[in-house]
Amino acid sequence: MYREEIKVLDCTIRDGGLMNAWHFSDEYVKAVYDACVESGIDYMEIGYKSSEKAYSREEVGCWKFSDEKDIERIVGENNTSLKLSAMVDIGRIEPDDILPASDSLLDMIRVAAYVHQIDKAIWLADHCVEKGYEVSINLMAVSNVLERDLEEALEDVGKSKLPIFYLVDSFGSLYCEQVEGLIKKYQEFLPKKTIGVHMHNNMQLAFSNTITGIIQNANMLDATFLGIGRGAGNCPLELLLSFLKNPKYKIRPILGVIQEYMLDMQKEIDWGYHIPYLITGSMNQHPRSAMKWMNSEEKDDFAAFFSQMNEKGDL
Amino acid sequence: MYREEIKVLDCTIRDGGLMNAWHFSDEYVKAVYDACVESGIDYMEIGYKSSEKAYSREEVGCWKFSDEKDIERIVGENNTSLKLSAMVDIGRIEPDDILPASDSLLDMIRVAAYVHQIDKAIWLADHCVEKGYEVSINLMAVSNVLERDLEEALEDVGKSKLPIFYLVDSFGSLYCEQVEGLIKKYQEFLPKKTIGVHMHNNMQLAFSNTITGIIQNANMLDATFLGIGRGAGNCPLELLLSFLKNPKYKIRPILGVIQEYMLDMQKEIDWGYHIPYLITGSMNQHPRSAMKWMNSEEKDDFAAFFSQMNEKGDL
Repeated sequence: MYREEIKVLDCTIRDGGLMNAWHFSDEYVKAVYDACVESGIDYMEIGYKSSEKAYSREEVGCWKFSDEKDIERIVGENNTSLKLSAMVDIGRIEPDDILPASDSLLDMIRVAAYVHQIDKAIWLADHCVEKGYEVSINLMAVSNVLERDLEEALEDVGKSKLPIFYLVDSFGSLYCEQVEGLIKKYQEFLPKKTIGVHMHNNMQLAFSNTITGIIQNANMLDATFLGIGRGAGNCPLELLLSFLKNPKYKIRPILGVIQEYMLDMQKEIDWGYHIPYLITGSMNQHPRSAMKWMNSEEKDDFAAFFSQMNEKGDL
Repeated sequence: MYREEIKVLDCTIRDGGLMNAWHFSDEYVKAVYDACVESGIDYMEIGYKSSEKAYSREEVGCWKFSDEKDIERIVGENNTSLKLSAMVDIGRIEPDDILPASDSLLDMIRVAAYVHQIDKAIWLADHCVEKGYEVSINLMAVSNVLERDLEEALEDVGKSKLPIFYLVDSFGSLYCEQVEGLIKKYQEFLPKKTIGVHMHNNMQLAFSNTITGIIQNANMLDATFLGIGRGAGNCPLELLLSFLKNPKYKIRPILGVIQEYMLDMQKEIDWGYHIPYLITGSMNQHPRSAMKWMNSEEKDDFAAFFSQMNEKGDL
């Protein structure tokens, strides 16, 4: 599967950090960075950019803020072909917190937004375009958005300067036919924009849904080392690279980081396919209740979680 | 996704037994059987039928032979709607070892065969049809079969009495477009036969490939509790039932067995997605070298396994 336009974005630190409040060692972040460079990955999302007022540094690690000095500590001047990205959440960042791109090690800003925040997201995205960044909007939880609300949002996005728009399966609840239908709709409303895909693995469909995205001409593909990410995690980068067959991508450096760091990490951070994530995913629910269950003493009582989620009937 | 013709076949004991030489406790086999009955599963494949000459009882458990007395110990007279199946391998069974269906607790015999064995498989399948069984041929390793050999085999199968023919992804190497193409070919050559799918999870595609099968009108679907099976395992039954939305299937009994037996079992038997299985799957290789690696002291040195498998170049 070779298509020159395809770009791969690693979001190991940003999305994986949702599982450990971004308390990664510098050594690990550097290993991920080095492997991304060596593997020919196009973008690495190193964290969120957030306002200091939005989170306490006692609770979250530095990649929730992604200050320039922290990024520089890992990447130096980043004289590589790897571009760096950070994600921003609407309402958790002040526009002035974002430096002009010429003063930043970041090349891309991705704006995460729910559909009711789309106007704010477009404003912020255009603001970042003007500051010189590559920019995307990642519309979250689209599996719960009504058709008319989605179309109104897409019409507004279509009028913006934004170059990239993402299909995000926040709940890990989309099946291949839904992915295909949504991408076709995005392309219909946004014919000149690049479409990206960010999939979750609640139903072991993150990789296959990413392939469906590729078949439908999505050209920005999110993935993480060994699929680390919130709850059931993301599309595993090693699987994606093995599929793409693009000679510019190398899988071996990714395997090196997985064996050196992530097998031990798996003993501390329990991401991946677990029954509670399947239950919320198949019910098109946010995984927060499954994550809470996975952190409780009853975590292995799947039937009880199933009953709690199904008070109204049987799955 | 509701289609009346769809039948689900659980092969937890038969395929899972490839990982522990069928040394399951009677209590566990009974729990799987009871859950299959309660969940409305259509078929349970309880093991292989093999000749006593083919294997030593000191090495393999009783489900490699599936004697009537062993089956009866678990299911009694099986006065339920669950049908029982056993698999036979060409060359490991004598036709006379198979009782007439009227004298057996088994309802179905599935004949596993490589393409070069297809004539023997058709003979044995027809023999089992005559003895009163439902019968399938499961053509293994089709990802390595040349087009002309496959078409010749399908022509011969088309002339047989056999009612069911299976697409088997033995190496876990098929992507959705290949699954779609193969099922279309099977249907073209076998328009009157039911098509089944048996997928492996080397690239986390067992469930999504099963969905592709459903979309393409495959109506016999193999799955196992928590995906247990050889190497990376099979399509997880709990995912398949959550997708099918058929009111006759219940997911809760499956979850009960998973939490009561299989979380502990996972500590002993290491099936599921692991990097060596991805490597053989993406290279369209039999998983035996990955399984051997997973049982070696170097099991976590993925880069070394990758190098060993890629002496000729880079993936």
